[in-house]
Amino acid sequence: MQYPEPIARLIDSYMKLPGIGAKTAARLAFFSMDMEEEAVMNFANALISCKRDLRMCSVCGNITQEDPCEICRDTTRDHTKVLVVEDSRDVMSMERMREFRGMYHVLHGVLSPMEGTGPEDINIATLIKRLQEAEIEEVIIATNATAEGEATAMYLSRLIKPSGIKVTRLAHGLAVGSDIEYADEMTLFRAIEGRREL
Amino acid sequence: MQYPEPIARLIDSYMKLPGIGAKTAARLAFFSMDMEEEAVMNFANALISCKRDLRMCSVCGNITQEDPCEICRDTTRDHTKVLVVEDSRDVMSMERMREFRGMYHVLHGVLSPMEGTGPEDINIATLIKRLQEAEIEEVIIATNATAEGEATAMYLSRLIKPSGIKVTRLAHGLAVGSDIEYADEMTLFRAIEGRREL
Repeated sequence: MQYPEPIARLIDSYMKLPGIGAKTAARLAFFSMDMEEEAVMNFANALISCKRDLRMCSVCGNITQEDPCEICRDTTRDHTKVLVVEDSRDVMSMERMREFRGMYHVLHGVLSPMEGTGPEDINIATLIKRLQEAEIEEVIIATNATAEGEATAMYLSRLIKPSGIKVTRLAHGLAVGSDIEYADEMTLFRAIEGRREL
Repeated sequence: MQYPEPIARLIDSYMKLPGIGAKTAARLAFFSMDMEEEAVMNFANALISCKRDLRMCSVCGNITQEDPCEICRDTTRDHTKVLVVEDSRDVMSMERMREFRGMYHVLHGVLSPMEGTGPEDINIATLIKRLQEAEIEEVIIATNATAEGEATAMYLSRLIKPSGIKVTRLAHGLAVGSDIEYADEMTLFRAIEGRREL
């Protein structure tokens, strides 16, 4: 005997999500079945709406309902600075800080020879076009501090620098509130290397 | 700045699921957005269908598309034995074993004074009605080996025994393939207590 077909289909759908195996998927499916009808309908509609109502901003590549996105349309922001991130969630993290008032550019990935991701597979072409067309003074590269993130930062730096635009990279070092004792060697190395006079 | 509204709603929906916090919900929402349109539509439809097309079998309480359920309608099964479980997933586990050919009764919960769950809150009334109306010879109680599961088993046993119907409980002891070294004391106690002559 199998699960009734609607449940089996829902379990299959949950299993397509990252980090969710067969047991968890079954648990989530049974939980969904016990949820209020309204909550389930909201969930289903949110799924459909995410697929139908969102697009990539044609300027910066960020996820948006309207093109260009809210940030690209905002004339009170500093359009001469562009902060380059790997994905849209990084934009949200930066915005939560409430300090950066420049623009963004979302790559939707990083260069990864291991996974066959080359420069043409991520959102680099529109960045270059943007740098040629708009008055941009500084590109701040905020890819993650992983091997791929570093390689992407180096690649972009070499690509952009000849045009005379300033290219910077986020500082790496000890996280605020962290213990030196627990810091890994690469982080300590970066902290020493990037030390500043007091 | 907030997430675009469709994403924010999807994150909210994911956060309603058990064991999923804000960060995981955001990761799942972005993942869903990158899924194939067809997969997302299947997911949404499965959610709706689980809510709309499933009901509880009026005989055994199992989740089903048709009432009575497949098992209750099956005349080749042994209708004199009823195995009582906590939820529909336990029925599936039993069916995977392919050995038990009797009927089921799904309680949809266990007695739990701590959480205020009394006999009227779980599917016990229909079980008693069933025992009165059908020719049932044995009730096998297969609630989990937790404090609540044990208490529910005791409660049902005392309720049913006076009617002369045989009441049994699943055996508890060492799991097949497990190490004595790693068994907890209660399991070992049950294994000794339930020992059998070879």
